[in-house]
Amino acid sequence: MQIINFQSFFGPRVGVLDNDFVVDVLASHQANPAFTHEAAVHLGNTISVIEHWQVLRPGFEQAVANSIESGVGRIPSAQVHLLAPMIPSSILCSGSNYLSHNAEKANADISGKEPEFFIKTGDCVVGPGANIVLDRVLTQKLDGEVELAVVIGKPGRHIPKERALEHVFGYTIVNDVTARDRQVRSRPDGSFWYELGRGKFFDSSAPLGPCITTADELGDPQNLMVRSWVNGELRQISSTSQMIWSVAELVHFFSVNVTLRPGMVIITGTPSGTAWSTDTELGGRWSGTDGMVPAKGYLKDGDRVICEIDKIGRLENTVIENR
Amino acid sequence: MQIINFQSFFGPRVGVLDNDFVVDVLASHQANPAFTHEAAVHLGNTISVIEHWQVLRPGFEQAVANSIESGVGRIPSAQVHLLAPMIPSSILCSGSNYLSHNAEKANADISGKEPEFFIKTGDCVVGPGANIVLDRVLTQKLDGEVELAVVIGKPGRHIPKERALEHVFGYTIVNDVTARDRQVRSRPDGSFWYELGRGKFFDSSAPLGPCITTADELGDPQNLMVRSWVNGELRQISSTSQMIWSVAELVHFFSVNVTLRPGMVIITGTPSGTAWSTDTELGGRWSGTDGMVPAKGYLKDGDRVICEIDKIGRLENTVIENR
Repeated sequence: MQIINFQSFFGPRVGVLDNDFVVDVLASHQANPAFTHEAAVHLGNTISVIEHWQVLRPGFEQAVANSIESGVGRIPSAQVHLLAPMIPSSILCSGSNYLSHNAEKANADISGKEPEFFIKTGDCVVGPGANIVLDRVLTQKLDGEVELAVVIGKPGRHIPKERALEHVFGYTIVNDVTARDRQVRSRPDGSFWYELGRGKFFDSSAPLGPCITTADELGDPQNLMVRSWVNGELRQISSTSQMIWSVAELVHFFSVNVTLRPGMVIITGTPSGTAWSTDTELGGRWSGTDGMVPAKGYLKDGDRVICEIDKIGRLENTVIENR
Repeated sequence: MQIINFQSFFGPRVGVLDNDFVVDVLASHQANPAFTHEAAVHLGNTISVIEHWQVLRPGFEQAVANSIESGVGRIPSAQVHLLAPMIPSSILCSGSNYLSHNAEKANADISGKEPEFFIKTGDCVVGPGANIVLDRVLTQKLDGEVELAVVIGKPGRHIPKERALEHVFGYTIVNDVTARDRQVRSRPDGSFWYELGRGKFFDSSAPLGPCITTADELGDPQNLMVRSWVNGELRQISSTSQMIWSVAELVHFFSVNVTLRPGMVIITGTPSGTAWSTDTELGGRWSGTDGMVPAKGYLKDGDRVICEIDKIGRLENTVIENR
């Protein structure tokens, strides 16, 4: 099942994406005696839905079936304003998780040895179709990074990697938007270090969506094609099979620090093809060996950015310079 | 006014601390016709109270007055279970903001040049009296840091430092609990770098409270004594006058990255006296010049930690080893 949030007349609401239609579970539920008012109170908040998913799931399935049969609460997707599928309490981020990306950029002390650990929050999140703000006071080097985002379902701490996927509710897409000139700093000796706070945490730095595909529907998270485009030009193409640390390993890794809970999202790093790759000033060292054309510079006003991952969909956003 | 959260029979509730009493604003409001049900709906969530403070404030003041007169909703503090005064959406953290701390520890490339920018979230927060969990899998070197925490009231971006304090709702205390052996890493050449994600973001790493003192009541934020104790031994003593970057400068600094909003908290760095100061393995270089005894090692099971700041109060927590 694919869970979405959309703008209803009464505010944000959780629904289901069913091919080219959005199912308004609340509207459909009026024709659905299995779906009680006690269930309905959760439909304003995806985290609440995730927490109560075992109880809610049959009602969601029935709502989809009802909407097909009766047409009630079934809206063509093009007529719906999709929102971010959730506003996470914490986004646990892992940097430098693809060999191809590590080969194109300046690495820091930790790169490739353990996941780089940094944090975004719901305050960074925007939804599908929303603007990515380019603020020239903050950055001259705004860059995108398509990443698989892992939505936590079952709470846990010190989760062994063998059981890690049991704690995953589903998957969505994040664009880990980065201010490179804030992230990457050079030392007098020519080496580099990162400032993963200042370069990663800013307004609209975490476009999220378009939907959360439930774990059972998605299947193996390590066999998904990952792509991004800027203005129709393919920038990144890889597979989640190329991750250095798998989703299960990252779930284990972060669960050593925090009790993972519904509301938390883990993002899993990006493959090569970022604009950083050709920025020699910041240590970019694109080799051309992967057959791609080099990225044509950082994001600018009006750029249309698409991030796509198999079985989840396409996340589209437009860059708007904040003048 | 001093805003608190406490555990009521019906769940967390916002109230007021009035000397040795907690005022249950909701209970008191039943004797208060100026305080409508529309106001009451905000009392489950401090962020909602902050967003609507201009409207709610007279009702809060009346509730305190009513409670003094009638005794309704006036409870001795010792009988109340205080909770964290808010669960922030983002805690914007600035490291290395006191010269005395920078003089006792291993500095990173950025230390002293600009505020070190890292993030905690509400998922790290615990309240007054709650346990700080010492997890030996995560860390052998758990350390505390008393800090002034700035609670944002009015939204803004690119806030000039001259107007920054207009955006502050109030102030509370945070213990910026740190896993030093995860934060501080050494290079072969003997220099150090920080991992401010992994060393700062973990369960119970942000004890917060006991109250939020409103900005008008607190006055000048750069003239407050800051102290911490472990098991009654004074560990840290300084004044917010010793900050490298003032509260106003930090509000400006973070507002370049994000639109500051109610729900956000800025924490302002810690003075000398951490256990790090005598840990030569991690670059500690306590000089003894400030007349203090050196800290007697990192936090351990059963330690009672107190953080105190003038005009806000005392935040007490106990360290419990997670076996």
